[in-house]
Amino acid sequence: MSKRIITISRQFGSGGRTIAKAVAEKLGYAYYDKELIEKVAEMTGFDPKYIEENGEYAPGKSIFSLASSYISSSRVMGGMSAYDYLWVVQRNAILEIADKENCVIVGRCADQILKDREDALHVYIHAPLEARAERIVRLYGESEKKPEERLKEKDTKRSVNYKHFTGEVWGDSRNYDLCLNSEKFGIEKCVELIVGLAKD
Amino acid sequence: MSKRIITISRQFGSGGRTIAKAVAEKLGYAYYDKELIEKVAEMTGFDPKYIEENGEYAPGKSIFSLASSYISSSRVMGGMSAYDYLWVVQRNAILEIADKENCVIVGRCADQILKDREDALHVYIHAPLEARAERIVRLYGESEKKPEERLKEKDTKRSVNYKHFTGEVWGDSRNYDLCLNSEKFGIEKCVELIVGLAKD
Repeated sequence: MSKRIITISRQFGSGGRTIAKAVAEKLGYAYYDKELIEKVAEMTGFDPKYIEENGEYAPGKSIFSLASSYISSSRVMGGMSAYDYLWVVQRNAILEIADKENCVIVGRCADQILKDREDALHVYIHAPLEARAERIVRLYGESEKKPEERLKEKDTKRSVNYKHFTGEVWGDSRNYDLCLNSEKFGIEKCVELIVGLAKD
Repeated sequence: MSKRIITISRQFGSGGRTIAKAVAEKLGYAYYDKELIEKVAEMTGFDPKYIEENGEYAPGKSIFSLASSYISSSRVMGGMSAYDYLWVVQRNAILEIADKENCVIVGRCADQILKDREDALHVYIHAPLEARAERIVRLYGESEKKPEERLKEKDTKRSVNYKHFTGEVWGDSRNYDLCLNSEKFGIEKCVELIVGLAKD
C-alpha cells in the first residue's frame, strides 16, 4: 500500500527538514512545516510567532505572560491553557490535512496523532552531535551560545513537548516506522529511501 | 563506503534474526548468533547454555548459584563476576570477528562495541506487540505464559542488559544507523533495504 502521508520528526540540525522538503517535491505531496503554522494561525487567531515558538515546545514560560502577549482576547479556549488549546487546534489541523491530501508533515507529534493510519509512513531523522553542530553553524551562522548548547536546548524542548502531549519518548525507534542516521547515509540517500518506501 | 560489518539488534518476535540470516546469506557474510555462543564457549570454558541464557541478559539470578552450576572451576576470572567476565570475553570475541571477516552479528550490544567503526552498519528491528505475539506463537508455539508476557519479559531483560553494560537506552534510534518496523515493511523489504545500504 503506498503511503499518502509522511510524517518526519527530526533532531535539530540533522537535515530532517531539508529531507522532508525534498521528499514532498519528489512525491508531489503538499509540504507542511511553516505552512502548518499559518493554518493554525488562521484557525485560532494566535500570532504565527507564538505558534512557531510553542507548537513544538513544552511549557517553559508563564502561560499568563504568553497568553497576554499573543493571544487574541476574543477567542474562547474553554478553560484550557494556551498550550493545551494550541495542541488541540494543531492536532485537528493535522487530522484535517491528512484526510484532505497527500502530504509530508514535519514534527509537531504528527507521528502520534496519525499513529494508526495504515497509509502513513512515520520517519525520524537523527545525526551525531558533532555533525549537527557543524551543520547549524554552516547554515545558520554562529551565535552567542555554543552550537552544542543550541542543539541540546532545542532537542530537550522537543522531547519534553512530545512526552507532555503523547506520553511517549521522542526518538524511541518504536514510535516510528523508519529511523535514519542522516550523517551515515547522507541527505540524498535518506530522501531516496523514504520516497522508495512511500511508493511501495 | 561499503559496510563489512552489520550489527542487528531486535525486539523478540520482530523477525530480526530471520532478517539478519537472510542479509548474511545475500551478502555472503559470516553470520554470528548461536555461532558467537560457541566461540565464547571455546574461549571461556563456559557452558554454551549459560552463555545463551546470560550473554544478552542482565543479572537476574544469584551469580554464585549460576557460577557453581556452570562455570568450569579451572577458569580464572580475575575477581570479576561471572556476568562481567562473560561480557568482557564476548566483547573481545566480537572485536576479533569484526577485524577478521565480513559479518552479520545479532544482538549482544555489538552496535555499541563497534560503535565508531565507519565500515559498520548498525540496525534495530522492531514491530508492534500484537504482530510479535502472533509471530512467536506461530513459530515457537503456545506456552504457559501469555505471548505478550513472554515478549515483555525478554525485551526487558535485553533492555536492562544493554543499559547495564553500555549505559545507553536499548531501542533509542540514536544508537543505530537504521531502525525498521518489520511489520510495516515486511521481512523481505527489510532484508532488501539493509543489503542495499550495506553495498552503498
